[in-house]
Amino acid sequence: MPVDMIEYAIGVDLGGTNLRAAAVDRTGKMLDRISENTNFAGGREAVLNDIVTAIQKMREKHGAQGLAGIGVGVPGFIRMKEGYITNSNNLPYLENFPVRDEISRRLGTLVILENDANAAAMGEKWIGAGRDVDDLVLLTLGTGIGGGIISGGRVMRGFVGMAGELGHITVVPNGNPCGCGNQGCLEKHASATAITAMARLMQLGEDLSSKDVADLAHEAGEKGDKARTIWRVMGESMGVALAMLVNTFNFPLYLLSGGMLPAWEFFAPHMLRTMEQRSFTFRATRTETRVAQATLGNEAGLYGAACLPWVEKKG
Amino acid sequence: MPVDMIEYAIGVDLGGTNLRAAAVDRTGKMLDRISENTNFAGGREAVLNDIVTAIQKMREKHGAQGLAGIGVGVPGFIRMKEGYITNSNNLPYLENFPVRDEISRRLGTLVILENDANAAAMGEKWIGAGRDVDDLVLLTLGTGIGGGIISGGRVMRGFVGMAGELGHITVVPNGNPCGCGNQGCLEKHASATAITAMARLMQLGEDLSSKDVADLAHEAGEKGDKARTIWRVMGESMGVALAMLVNTFNFPLYLLSGGMLPAWEFFAPHMLRTMEQRSFTFRATRTETRVAQATLGNEAGLYGAACLPWVEKKG
Repeated sequence: MPVDMIEYAIGVDLGGTNLRAAAVDRTGKMLDRISENTNFAGGREAVLNDIVTAIQKMREKHGAQGLAGIGVGVPGFIRMKEGYITNSNNLPYLENFPVRDEISRRLGTLVILENDANAAAMGEKWIGAGRDVDDLVLLTLGTGIGGGIISGGRVMRGFVGMAGELGHITVVPNGNPCGCGNQGCLEKHASATAITAMARLMQLGEDLSSKDVADLAHEAGEKGDKARTIWRVMGESMGVALAMLVNTFNFPLYLLSGGMLPAWEFFAPHMLRTMEQRSFTFRATRTETRVAQATLGNEAGLYGAACLPWVEKKG
Repeated sequence: MPVDMIEYAIGVDLGGTNLRAAAVDRTGKMLDRISENTNFAGGREAVLNDIVTAIQKMREKHGAQGLAGIGVGVPGFIRMKEGYITNSNNLPYLENFPVRDEISRRLGTLVILENDANAAAMGEKWIGAGRDVDDLVLLTLGTGIGGGIISGGRVMRGFVGMAGELGHITVVPNGNPCGCGNQGCLEKHASATAITAMARLMQLGEDLSSKDVADLAHEAGEKGDKARTIWRVMGESMGVALAMLVNTFNFPLYLLSGGMLPAWEFFAPHMLRTMEQRSFTFRATRTETRVAQATLGNEAGLYGAACLPWVEKKG
């Protein structure tokens, strides 16, 4: 590689509503980015074509010589060895299809496929709120709840690639039913969808967003009380899950990201109180164990996907 | 080291009622062992002296030249960096005392201190039921429930050394109170102590052991029904915890050990059914994910402590 050439990687984040791609250099500086509303209804060929086209654009513009590798973050369970997605609510037509190998074939080069929450955790570890530690857990609080575990500076994947499905931890054994077959999953009691459902049960409104319920929590009076009750219940569910994670991992850092963070002031005190009650380890390490907001927002997955080629090369 | 000298390590397991030490060669062959009923009531100096004396005996007999290292497994939370025990029900006088460094000083050589359940998990990975995998979780089902996590062939310790406290995962949010400050901990619903308590609540007897309740479960009639109900409830609690562990780790192997295993036929079906209901990952990997009985019995911790010097040296 010529000395004046910048080494970079391409990261792709295939989200629920759009496709983003970025060229990022080794220090985490974003050199370039594309964001497109992708026609997910177009089916497999349309989505694969969009992914490949976005990567090709980046590669042509910045040169194949400096390209360290390509990482692609996708929603759903991933079989790492085979490089395909087994379950994805948003992209059913990509299930049980050799996504990674097909993208690699069309590009003529290897790509790394990764679960989107794992990629986001990696991004936060690389240049976000987790850059000072090697071990962290990230929970992405959105329509559902995703999880990513970084251990020793790398994504913990499990033997198939399904590790970190933390949205499906049981926090209420007889709680709300979940599409995964379980009931009382964290994401049925603490996601944006759960907040909307609780607002309905509390007769606050039929279709309130978590932002709406956060706004209501600022108000005095009965509606404010109801909204604050919802955030207390959500915070306690988060606390049960986080206490379990602290007892299991004894990691120094637990990060939360996603559209629920604006309600932090309402749920976090209950979450932390529950963690203190339920985790001896948390109490014993209270000054050293941090629960904090992630800092990269919805860019985390893009950065994380981009850094995978460098992280994986380490060995 | 002369070519005819056998390289060996010394493992020590400080249990609730006795102290054991063994000399083990690199292939896992036990060359020698000592087991003593130790006078735990004698206090810190007596216990430290017993540990050091047992190690010295082994070292004198087998020679300092071939000694690869010394591992000591102890009950309680361990601060790895400082080498002391922070909480131990059985050995309060060893808490917040530099146990590791004091043993090292008296022996004139370094020792590795490890939590007993972590050591047992390492033993099973080395030469037991986990020898074919690099990633596993062990749950030790006894008076309490301990946990050990092996990731990439090594003990997962967390940043302080408290990882794997799996007996204190919440499985019943409003369940039985626990000395750890939580309520509904796995060990308050699935340990031998929990079985005894449930037998009392079911009016089966005031002080039945888990062995007694397993025997009763073989009987027809009302008493047998009650006993089988207890094992169903115990199995479901185990299932909630294991479903969570499978969702979190996606490891290929989950091992159970301890005095509750004779009741396996009564609780395991409920445990596995609950895991299938509550873990999508378990269902998706059912043919590849094993839940099995550990094979080293109460020798696991002894072997695991002995192998630590070799495992840790790897870097």
